[in-house]
Order: sequence, then C-alpha cells, then structure tokens
Amino acid sequence: MALIVQKFGGTSVGSIERIEQVAEKVKKHREAGDDLVVVLSAMSGETNRLIDLAKQITDQPVPRELDVIVSTGEQVTIALLTMALIKRGVPAVSYTGNQVRILTDSAHNKARILQIDDQKIRADLKQGRVVVVAGFQGVDEHGSITTLGRGGSDTTGVALAAALKADECQIYTDVDGVYTTDPRVVPQARRLEKITFEEMLEMASLGSKVLQIRSVEFAGKYNVPLRVLHSFKEGPGTLITIDEEESMEQPIISGIAFNRDEAKLTIRGVPDTPGVAFKILGPISAANIEVDMIVQNVSHDNTTDFTFTVHRNEYEKAHSVLENTAREIGAREVIGDTKIAKVSIVGVGMRSHAGVASRMFEALAKESINIQMISTSEIKVSVVIEEKYLELAVRALHTAFELDAAARQGE
Amino acid sequence: MALIVQKFGGTSVGSIERIEQVAEKVKKHREAGDDLVVVLSAMSGETNRLIDLAKQITDQPVPRELDVIVSTGEQVTIALLTMALIKRGVPAVSYTGNQVRILTDSAHNKARILQIDDQKIRADLKQGRVVVVAGFQGVDEHGSITTLGRGGSDTTGVALAAALKADECQIYTDVDGVYTTDPRVVPQARRLEKITFEEMLEMASLGSKVLQIRSVEFAGKYNVPLRVLHSFKEGPGTLITIDEEESMEQPIISGIAFNRDEAKLTIRGVPDTPGVAFKILGPISAANIEVDMIVQNVSHDNTTDFTFTVHRNEYEKAHSVLENTAREIGAREVIGDTKIAKVSIVGVGMRSHAGVASRMFEALAKESINIQMISTSEIKVSVVIEEKYLELAVRALHTAFELDAAARQGE
Repeated sequence: MALIVQKFGGTSVGSIERIEQVAEKVKKHREAGDDLVVVLSAMSGETNRLIDLAKQITDQPVPRELDVIVSTGEQVTIALLTMALIKRGVPAVSYTGNQVRILTDSAHNKARILQIDDQKIRADLKQGRVVVVAGFQGVDEHGSITTLGRGGSDTTGVALAAALKADECQIYTDVDGVYTTDPRVVPQARRLEKITFEEMLEMASLGSKVLQIRSVEFAGKYNVPLRVLHSFKEGPGTLITIDEEESMEQPIISGIAFNRDEAKLTIRGVPDTPGVAFKILGPISAANIEVDMIVQNVSHDNTTDFTFTVHRNEYEKAHSVLENTAREIGAREVIGDTKIAKVSIVGVGMRSHAGVASRMFEALAKESINIQMISTSEIKVSVVIEEKYLELAVRALHTAFELDAAARQGE
Repeated sequence: MALIVQKFGGTSVGSIERIEQVAEKVKKHREAGDDLVVVLSAMSGETNRLIDLAKQITDQPVPRELDVIVSTGEQVTIALLTMALIKRGVPAVSYTGNQVRILTDSAHNKARILQIDDQKIRADLKQGRVVVVAGFQGVDEHGSITTLGRGGSDTTGVALAAALKADECQIYTDVDGVYTTDPRVVPQARRLEKITFEEMLEMASLGSKVLQIRSVEFAGKYNVPLRVLHSFKEGPGTLITIDEEESMEQPIISGIAFNRDEAKLTIRGVPDTPGVAFKILGPISAANIEVDMIVQNVSHDNTTDFTFTVHRNEYEKAHSVLENTAREIGAREVIGDTKIAKVSIVGVGMRSHAGVASRMFEALAKESINIQMISTSEIKVSVVIEEKYLELAVRALHTAFELDAAARQGE
C-alpha cells in the first residue's frame, strides 16, 4: 500500500462536473488501496476574478490582504471535492494551508514553504480518510495567510509528498505526459516513460510548460518521484525521477525544446576593455529586463560584438537602453532581430557522449539552416535560428537523434 | 477616546463602490479619535452563490465542509475593506474568525461563540490600527472553521464588543434607526432615540427586522450598548440599551409592531379533560410547525375551544394535522382563517401604567375593529384582527399612544 500525493490544477476542478470527475478518479485510486492526499488549485478563472476585485480597490493591493482574498479560491474547491467524496462513501476531510499548518516565510504573494506539520494528515490517513489540502497557500509565523505565488499548487503537492515521505507525487494536467517535443510540430513526437529532474528543468524553462520549474527543483532537491498524468484520461504518464547513473542505457537526448518568445540584440564595434560586459548588461538589468542567452566572441581589431536575447515583449525597451549605452561607450551600432527562434536538445545522456553538438549542427546544415547563436550547458545545447525554419529544425533534430523511432532504449 | 465596534452588513459591502464608501465612513470615525473594530458580512448574494455551489454537489452538504466554503465570503470583504483603508492612509489589518480566534462550539452552520481572544486586536488597536474582522465565522477546538448561521455577523459584532468591553456596538443597516412603527403604514412614525433590549426583542420578533434577535439577546445579556444606524446616511440612529428604571420619564409604549404572516386555527367543541392542550399541540409540534399565539377560553358545557396561530405557509399542513386530532379526541370541528393580522403595542413603560390594554381596546373599538384574539406579556399586548383593518389599527394606536406627537418624553 503506497502513499500518493495527487495534485489537480485549476482546469481539472474548473466546474462542478469536473470536480465530480476528480472525485470518481480519487475514489478509484482509494479503492485500489493507496493512501491519498489530494492537493487542489482554485477553479480556473477564480484567482483572476479575486485579483480583479482587489485591483478595483487599488492598483497596488497590500500583499498581506491580497493573500487573504486569493486564498479563498482553493478553500472553496477543497470543500467541494471533500463533499463529492463523502457523497460517494469515501471518508474525506479538507484542510486549508493554515489548518495543515504549511508554515511559510512572510513574503506575501510569493512565500516559500519552511515546514509542514504532518501530524493531522497522518492521523486522518490512519483513520482511512482521503485528505484534501488547499494548494498554493500557507501561513506565516504570525498566523497571517500567505500564498506561494502563481501556480504554487504544484509546489504544495511536492512539499507535502516530501514531508510525508510519499511514494509518488502525481501532477494531473491537461497533457498525458512529457513528450520528446511538441506533437503539434512533430507528429512522431512520443511520450517519455521517464525523464530526469535536470532534463525536465531544461525542458520546462525552454517552453514545455507542463510543470512549474520551482516544483521540479523542489522535487529534485528532496528526491520526490514526480509523475505527470492526464486528469481525465487513463495512462501511466511520465515519471520524473533522479538520474540513476545508467548512462549506458540512456538515450543521448530526451527531448527537443523550442521557444519563439525571444528577440536578439547585438551591439557592434564595442571597444574591448575590461568591464565592458557589465557596462552593457548593467543598464538592461537596471531596466528590469531579463536576459536569456549571452554570446560574446573573441575580439577583432580591439573591438568586439556582444549579442544577447530578451523576451520579445521587451525588445523595444531593450533596444533603446542599448542605444544609450552604445553612445556612452563609443560602440559602432546596435542591431536587432525579433524574427528568431531558439531550439534546444536536452538530455543527461550527452554528458557521456561526445559529438552531440556536432550531430546537431550537421542535421541543421543538411537542411541549410543557418545558426545565429550557440549556447551550451552540461545537458543542453541551444541554437538561435531564423524563426521561419523552426518547425523544420525541430523535425530534423527529432529524426537525427532517433526520437521518432518506435523502440527506444529505457522504455 | 472610545472603543467602538462597527458592523456592516452584506448590502453595505455589496459592491466595490460601497466598500469604498464604508472605508470613507470608517476613516472619518477614526480621525475623530475613536478606536475602531469593524465587523463585516460577505458581499450581498455571495453566501447564496457559495451555498449553491455546494448544493450542486449534494443536497445535503457535509456541515463542516459547507462552513469551509461559506466562510470565504467574509474573508474576501475584510481584505477588500482593509486595502481600501490602507489606500486612504488609515493603518488597518484584517482577521478571519480563526485568526482572531473566535472560539465556537462544533455545531457547524449554526455554531455558538464560546470565547474570544482579544490579545491580537488589543495589540493592533494600541498600534493605531483599525481592526477588520470577518463576521459570521469562528473556529472550533479542533481548528475547523465554523459559521454562526445566517446573519450571524451581528452576533460577532456584539460578542467582540462584549469581549473588548467596547463603549458601543454600532450596527449599520439600510434604515436610519428603529421606528415607533413602519413608516410605510404610518407616515407620522418617528425614529426612537432609545429603546430597551426587551422592547427591541419584542419589536424584532414581531416583524421589525432591523436586527437579529440573537444579537439583541446577546447584547442584553452582556449589557453591550447597541446602536442601529444607516450605512450611508448621517444621523444618530437608535440606541438600544438597558432599562434604566426611569419609568417616570418613559413613554408608556415605545412602538407598534405588526405582522401579516400568520394564520389562525381553531378546534371547536373539545371535550375539556386534563392534557387536552398537549393532545392538540403535540402533533403540531411533531410536524415541525411553530406555533405563536395560543388562546384557550374557559370551558362551556364541558367542552372548550382552542385557538392558535401558525405561519401562513404552514396553514394547510397544520389544518390537516388538526383534522386528525379532532377525530381522535372527538372535537366538533376545525375552522381557520388566513386573512388575519397581529398588532402589538410594546413598551417597558406599561409595567408601571395600569390601563394600557384597555386604552388599546378602546382605540380599536372606536374604529369598529373587532378583536379576535388577545395575548399579553409584561411589556407587550398583542391582538389578532381581520387583515384588512391592519393599517387602520396601527394608525389608530399610533395616535392613541401619542407616538405621532412631535415632542416626546425621553428624547
């Protein structure tokens, strides 16, 4: 008999009908013999409705009071699901973050969990109850209600699983697992049976928005096996777990992520003196613009070119900041491009396989796709290419790394 | 500098605009120098919306879980008002029933307050904050959220005022005070400056629905001066306080209450044997029908007539129960009338004045209004009359007891 934490998001509890469906699902699992702790989000749309109410009072709601309002969203869903379970003859009880005592710091609207008191939950599980816990919220040492920030329900699930030493934390979503790449781009994309935390982090931060990055980090840190499943379809989903050092059996890469939200900026003919990188990026950072890839090449005639990418929405702002900088430091010009895309191959397998990058570049060259920027990490290689080649590049790489093959090692 | 508890109901916080108006009002009072604790209901309609959600899951929601849902209504308004106060530069903080620690019993949906911890509130008041507390809710010894039942926000206000030994508990409503009678019936009806708890109880239970009976009882028990005021108009309202034994200065009666919700049933020719009253009312009570006035006259030829009133909605049900009883005990017949009204004069002054009842009957006789039933208590005389004479009777009594006079003792 296993102890499982199951987390259902806002869409999964977005209507009374869906809450009834979740209750059916939970009932089935319970009858299969597992001990269950269920973590819920607010009904989809409800959190926005509550924030809108606050915004009608003031553009800058007091964070402590905003949490008092926003936390009511989950408070409603946990009680509704508990009622639906009891109606089905499944003993159940609901707890808010305060009632479980999910202790957080006092950073309202973006609090971090410090400690979870598992006493009540364990007592209820022992009595055969399903315990339904409000996600996304906690309480600080003063007894004030806190929220973990948007989407924090995944984190609640993982933190509860860690505190209870649960066998698995199951995150129910609107996809049936993690794929080698986006199936809308590559029809041959396949669901992965397993993926490591590190790979998942790279996939998530690159635009595969299945799970929140923070919850994956958390799960990795406490080694909580995470499983991504579809809320209303049957299937094993994808298990996210630690890298068990079985490099021999691992595929070289697990998936291909991509992203068309970025824009590229280059400042050319920069006098190559110490501290020039800070002179360029300092003002960008001061303007609250986040930078993703940064590339600086070796200098030529004592000047260098400096290129970085920002979110496309911040391109104009970054461009004008950079124009100022160029004048100040005596750079030649600022050029930019919003029609770019980033494609990344991700996999812990590449640690022990040489030539992964060159295989990637070869595959792109075969399709005559020009690479504009390159950036690498231990388990990832990213390239920036012209946006119009994105789909072509993803398909070519999916084939080159044998991801469309029916049989795959490790599955 | 006084300590005042102010309670605003659902209509007063029914929209963002109204919450802003309440914030303005609270700000003014605060600036006048009083320490303020503000108790709020949910936005009007919200509690029903939440109950409807639960009812969509099950006709009989688990009481504990229903309280988890329903309590979110006040949780939203307290934070909205607190934001609106802080926006105006008024330091403020919100507390749920659980956070103040309003300890109740575990009778979910209709809990009773056992104890209030005033520590946090006193600390905040000392720091110059306005304390905004969720009405209608508390927490039981297990940490479960409870609600006091419909309209319990008045009770929260009074209980807080008692715990804090506040100088006054102000209940803001949609009327500017308690009137001698309904101004829609008697245009000369006047707002009372003062009324005693006992009188208010009689007025309230007779249909002047300004305050909840339970909160008035509570206020009387703990001797908390209550004041009824209009949420959005200026004015002193009506103070409800203890009878200060100043009978000489008191008017004979304070007001005239009336009620057209009742129906009358008579069982005639009942053999007059011991226990017959129970034989008649036992089955009525067993059918969950509440009885108001009961009149039994002296017997005649060993039979008697037994008359009582019930809510008009329960007339048919009561009639059929009574038909059965009549057959069983060998009574002659059952007759009834739904076209009746009850009119009552209420006043602590009548304790020390003889002849109040006769003055009432005289006034009605002058208008040729026939009295069908009479019932009296220490501070009240009620009569049942034909419904069509209701307005006429109320106006005649209002004049007869000099309530429309411009100058009134005690004001």
